[in-house]
Amino acid sequence: MSLRSSSPRELFDAASTGDRGALARTLSLLERGGEAAREIGRLAYPKSGGAYTVGITGAPGAGKSTLTSATIKHIRSQSIEVAVLAIDPSSPFTGGAILGDRVRMQDHALDTGVFIRSMATRGHLGGLSLATPEAIRLLDAVGKQWILVETVGVGQVEVEIAGKADTTVVVVNPGWGDSVQANKAGLMEIADIFVINKSDRKGADETRRDLEQMLDLSDLSSDDWRPPVLSTVGTSGEGVPALWDEVLRHRKFIDDSGELERRREFRLREELREIVARRLEDRARAILTGERWDTIQRGVLDRRVDPWSAADEMLRGVGA
Amino acid sequence: MSLRSSSPRELFDAASTGDRGALARTLSLLERGGEAAREIGRLAYPKSGGAYTVGITGAPGAGKSTLTSATIKHIRSQSIEVAVLAIDPSSPFTGGAILGDRVRMQDHALDTGVFIRSMATRGHLGGLSLATPEAIRLLDAVGKQWILVETVGVGQVEVEIAGKADTTVVVVNPGWGDSVQANKAGLMEIADIFVINKSDRKGADETRRDLEQMLDLSDLSSDDWRPPVLSTVGTSGEGVPALWDEVLRHRKFIDDSGELERRREFRLREELREIVARRLEDRARAILTGERWDTIQRGVLDRRVDPWSAADEMLRGVGA
Repeated sequence: MSLRSSSPRELFDAASTGDRGALARTLSLLERGGEAAREIGRLAYPKSGGAYTVGITGAPGAGKSTLTSATIKHIRSQSIEVAVLAIDPSSPFTGGAILGDRVRMQDHALDTGVFIRSMATRGHLGGLSLATPEAIRLLDAVGKQWILVETVGVGQVEVEIAGKADTTVVVVNPGWGDSVQANKAGLMEIADIFVINKSDRKGADETRRDLEQMLDLSDLSSDDWRPPVLSTVGTSGEGVPALWDEVLRHRKFIDDSGELERRREFRLREELREIVARRLEDRARAILTGERWDTIQRGVLDRRVDPWSAADEMLRGVGA
Repeated sequence: MSLRSSSPRELFDAASTGDRGALARTLSLLERGGEAAREIGRLAYPKSGGAYTVGITGAPGAGKSTLTSATIKHIRSQSIEVAVLAIDPSSPFTGGAILGDRVRMQDHALDTGVFIRSMATRGHLGGLSLATPEAIRLLDAVGKQWILVETVGVGQVEVEIAGKADTTVVVVNPGWGDSVQANKAGLMEIADIFVINKSDRKGADETRRDLEQMLDLSDLSSDDWRPPVLSTVGTSGEGVPALWDEVLRHRKFIDDSGELERRREFRLREELREIVARRLEDRARAILTGERWDTIQRGVLDRRVDPWSAADEMLRGVGA
């Protein structure tokens, strides 16, 4: 099959039968936005809902990629298939591009049970916060059971994206306090599991105490999930089986308590809200660049009409 | 005249004849938003355009209020009338409230040539970024020739508000680098005049060198205004006459070069753009809380319709 000339539906069908090239191409179309992306979204949506997503986030240099790679290795030793979405909002590269750390992921390049994809484009599909759930649903729809979503950086956007997973793993290092000071609260809020990676380094005990203390001070009730604080060494794989056990335990916990369904519903509602808001923004942009706009604006600049009345006039006739 | 029972037009007319109580009340109505605010805006707009605004911004503790107070004293010594808008986005207080530093302004409480007003409310009229230009136009329309706009804090909002003045004064202190690191670029962008206040303290020379160096590195051409770097001691008034001379020099420069008109046009366009965007947001909020929303949302949660198609459905019929 020639991927370039295939329709979105043909690509989606081929991806669903396990064609990795078709899946990569379908993701590219999705990222590019427009009508093809919409069609893929429509095809994927009813078939999605079976996959479980694990978000992995933390400061640059925390060793997320190494840890993700070690986690993949552990999962694969149990013959479970896995897909990885690596999100880097600060990078201009996307798609096939190898993003620095991604090199480490090449360990799994020949394993057909692992599908790895980097996403870094902004602008299409209304930015990464809208492109990420679409990509997850596509991976989900073509049969991936586990999807790891790794985000690079600890800015608001990265934390938000990682926090949209079913289980969120926050990776810190000994002495974490300094590097993520600005967004500690944001990380605390989304963490289901804390991992002190590079735990063979100095300061791991203090970091553990620090985290446990913060958890003690938070208002968790006895029925709530208390994020465990784990130790790993990504480079050797030490602690990774225990990390995966905790992911499975958290999955069972939120599944049993109904929290998983609530989270997913909440996320969908938020996504809808965001799509509607984006559409209205587009609409505003269209209004503000039209010819009528120039005429009305002239009236404001000439002090014939005040800005608020001008806005009323602009919006009249577009139903807003 | 009973201010409480007066109509917006009566209040505006009274304020225009110099009634300070009426002016204060008119500003309160403006802040409160709604139809009365709109009417005041419509009344004020055609009569505005004569005042000149000077923005004063800088980190908390830089001595902005003391410097503003000293500047008022200097202006008043030349019998020029002046109005001051003190904007504090982080404060829940507004109107007559005395905002910490505002106490210093009480020096001028008995001087009818000085009108001082604090604004701190958010939410009304679409937030301070929209309320501030409205308040400025009102002060302008009732005959104030000079309006000082002092903002507390150096966050994005504060810098934006201060940067909307005709001339913007950025107040720093010896050793400024550390305190405003995060927003240095933002401050550099809006500064027409730099003032090193508390210049009798250690480190003033280094700060001056630092600032001049940053200006050397910026891409100013020989036709551009190069922000002068001045030294003041707000508490003694030292350097304040020179500061005011630079304000007058900058005013003449941008007036002669056509830059003043361009700035004002740009600001008005931006304001219009913001009002239109806010209106559409309001519209979105109305959509997102309606009954139809619940039905469509249910379809998404049940995987009958994908989020993008649901958004299309939501927006159909509202012209967006």
